[in-house]
Amino acid sequence: MSTDLMPNRYTPGEAAIAPREAELIARRDGVLGASYRLQYRQPVHFVRGDGMWLYDPDGRAYLDFYNNVPSLGHCNREVNAAMADQAGRISANTRYLEPHLVDYAERLVDTFPTELNRVVFTCTGSESNDLALRIARLTTGNEGVIVSSHAYHGTSMATSMVSPNLGDAVTLSPSVRMVALPGPAGVSEDVAAAFFEQQVRMAITDLKRRGIGIAALLIDTIFSSDGVWVDPPGFIAGAVKAVQEAGGLLIADEVQPGFGRTGAHMWGFERHGVVPDLVTLGKPMGNGFPIGAVVGRKPLMDRFGATARYSNTFAGNTIGIAAANAVLTILQRDQIPRNALAMGERMREGLSAIQRTQEGILAIRNAGLFFGVDIGLERMDAARRRTMALDIVNLMRDDGVLLSTTGANEDALKIRPPLICQEEHVDRFLETMKSALRKVVA
Amino acid sequence: MSTDLMPNRYTPGEAAIAPREAELIARRDGVLGASYRLQYRQPVHFVRGDGMWLYDPDGRAYLDFYNNVPSLGHCNREVNAAMADQAGRISANTRYLEPHLVDYAERLVDTFPTELNRVVFTCTGSESNDLALRIARLTTGNEGVIVSSHAYHGTSMATSMVSPNLGDAVTLSPSVRMVALPGPAGVSEDVAAAFFEQQVRMAITDLKRRGIGIAALLIDTIFSSDGVWVDPPGFIAGAVKAVQEAGGLLIADEVQPGFGRTGAHMWGFERHGVVPDLVTLGKPMGNGFPIGAVVGRKPLMDRFGATARYSNTFAGNTIGIAAANAVLTILQRDQIPRNALAMGERMREGLSAIQRTQEGILAIRNAGLFFGVDIGLERMDAARRRTMALDIVNLMRDDGVLLSTTGANEDALKIRPPLICQEEHVDRFLETMKSALRKVVA
Repeated sequence: MSTDLMPNRYTPGEAAIAPREAELIARRDGVLGASYRLQYRQPVHFVRGDGMWLYDPDGRAYLDFYNNVPSLGHCNREVNAAMADQAGRISANTRYLEPHLVDYAERLVDTFPTELNRVVFTCTGSESNDLALRIARLTTGNEGVIVSSHAYHGTSMATSMVSPNLGDAVTLSPSVRMVALPGPAGVSEDVAAAFFEQQVRMAITDLKRRGIGIAALLIDTIFSSDGVWVDPPGFIAGAVKAVQEAGGLLIADEVQPGFGRTGAHMWGFERHGVVPDLVTLGKPMGNGFPIGAVVGRKPLMDRFGATARYSNTFAGNTIGIAAANAVLTILQRDQIPRNALAMGERMREGLSAIQRTQEGILAIRNAGLFFGVDIGLERMDAARRRTMALDIVNLMRDDGVLLSTTGANEDALKIRPPLICQEEHVDRFLETMKSALRKVVA
Repeated sequence: MSTDLMPNRYTPGEAAIAPREAELIARRDGVLGASYRLQYRQPVHFVRGDGMWLYDPDGRAYLDFYNNVPSLGHCNREVNAAMADQAGRISANTRYLEPHLVDYAERLVDTFPTELNRVVFTCTGSESNDLALRIARLTTGNEGVIVSSHAYHGTSMATSMVSPNLGDAVTLSPSVRMVALPGPAGVSEDVAAAFFEQQVRMAITDLKRRGIGIAALLIDTIFSSDGVWVDPPGFIAGAVKAVQEAGGLLIADEVQPGFGRTGAHMWGFERHGVVPDLVTLGKPMGNGFPIGAVVGRKPLMDRFGATARYSNTFAGNTIGIAAANAVLTILQRDQIPRNALAMGERMREGLSAIQRTQEGILAIRNAGLFFGVDIGLERMDAARRRTMALDIVNLMRDDGVLLSTTGANEDALKIRPPLICQEEHVDRFLETMKSALRKVVA
């Protein structure tokens, strides 16, 4: 496996590339840094987006079942209109009084448990997690951070150092400990909570023996990069209690599960019945406009803010606030999470029906419209399972449906359609999926 | 002085606040994290922006001589139209082929010396500096970073740890060394280069004696937070050579001086006749849209990119690219840097004329439209100079002109008008400045 653990990527020479795309790739290579990656064996090329669809230069439509940033659909007219209107009025920064910032902050905080009553805006999910780490380390006086085995929490230096998912080339912090999740460890659901709590307690003890106190348990509440592990609801609760009793904080990374994606709730941590100390937001918050936030408990924010100035030039600018405000309005008015729940159920039922008649699906996990689908046949080794998942992703891309892989072995399909998806989109996805499975299980 | 070194701030109880603003401040305090700061003894409250002007809810106009993000003016119609047009088409990410990203990357790189031929996009200046540090540390294998005494390079954990300007509450990295600048040290211009080189050589030696290799000299090429130190051009060259000979990189932080602000050049490092290894961009790049970049030499980008995936969800999205592309078009087509140079000269002449007839100005420094103006009377102590500068900033705010303070003692006025400013704006600024000086030097 490549050192950066991104199997779903374009590799020069692996597949035939049409001249138009070959030229664009050559130009990219001639000017972009080598850290950029293209997805798929044959990269996709898009020039237009509309709702659930992306279009290539020839007008061919691709159904987007992967991008969790435009949760309300590509080029959402209402969000775009709010941005354009605000751009014509003012794009103020947060060192000046401006009412929309406060209006939105109040609306946002109202969607959280009452203890989580203060917000600081950022521009990206990475900045949110980076700031949450700063707050956790300053307020606890400790350095230790516990994350899941294949966690990904961002691209900044500090967040990359607590992101084992980035692979061996990215140095991990000496103060980070990785813990196994019960699902990937094969632990049954009835003892999952006890297993996870034990893992976390061992990590706290190990940190302590090396003189490192615990600052935070930092978790994506849907464990996306670990393969999407959602059940049983509440399995993280005992571990959270252990961390908080040891003086550490729970940072809930809601960059991926937040803003209604899990269907039943606005925030992923609600499925687990816990109240975090800090919550980090990003991706879908502005339906594509770069905006994120840290929401947290007042005593922590007070302690951090009393001494540490946090001045983020673009964060909380009025155009981003207008985009985020429109997103929140649509989410609540159109009951988008309820749609995510209903469409998630339809997808789950459809996938289960396929699984009953067709080999190739080993497990289906989801909360709302976030799915991890394990691919492979019984007794197939890890490398072949990974190849099969990758084959499916590329076959579906060729059939005009976008998704990717995830998990420790990257053999799980990662499926995250925009939350506005309707029955016809789910059904199209299921048909394409069934067809791809038939081809790979010959 | 407050621990976070931001004297130009609102402090509750210091000045009378009108009911409308008092209510908004109370609502802010009730929902925003305590790390937020408002500027001015009486905070300003803006609901509309247009070109050089910001307007309060009563329609009162304030001349903006401070904000270096909207370099092409508040609510620039051409930039806004480009953003709105693109928002209606597609906001693609960089893992899909999309031609506008490549078009703009090529245009941007063309404004740099030929060695600087690869770009990676980010969302903020902090993300740019954070990424540059990651690249420098990975490619050199070293940790050591040298910055100026009062440097500020960002809000992420890694950049805050090399930002002494953030004050005692923010922990510095054990691998950072601060060096004195010749200007603030009172060294004459003819030996400035030798002095600075010696400072940097001593820092390299000190790092080495502790087993820490040098990764980078990281400098804002206009030394904004140190008080705006620009002369003599080239004074950093010997130090840069010393760092590069020791195996370290020069990271030129162009977040503030870049994109034509210094007038004669597109980039601040060009004034000093050096070619950096990495250059970081931010603030004015999208005239307010959150976009930044790291531009660098191919071998460094190759070495970083070969192993470290850098995937920034929002960075390089097509709406931000459209904004940045419009900014670059206007900068080049309308010869904005030339205007910055001419208006900077007019401002400098005007300030010098005031200095000849009116006490209170100790020194005037500028490159283009970035000014540091030292305030005080001969033999006045540091605290009283700082108070006088702060009094001027607040008097000018009351007279409808916005600026702030900078420097180790925060006794220098920091003046950075949008680059589109015209003679009438400069003249209005000069009149207001003269009036404020008369009042403080009674």
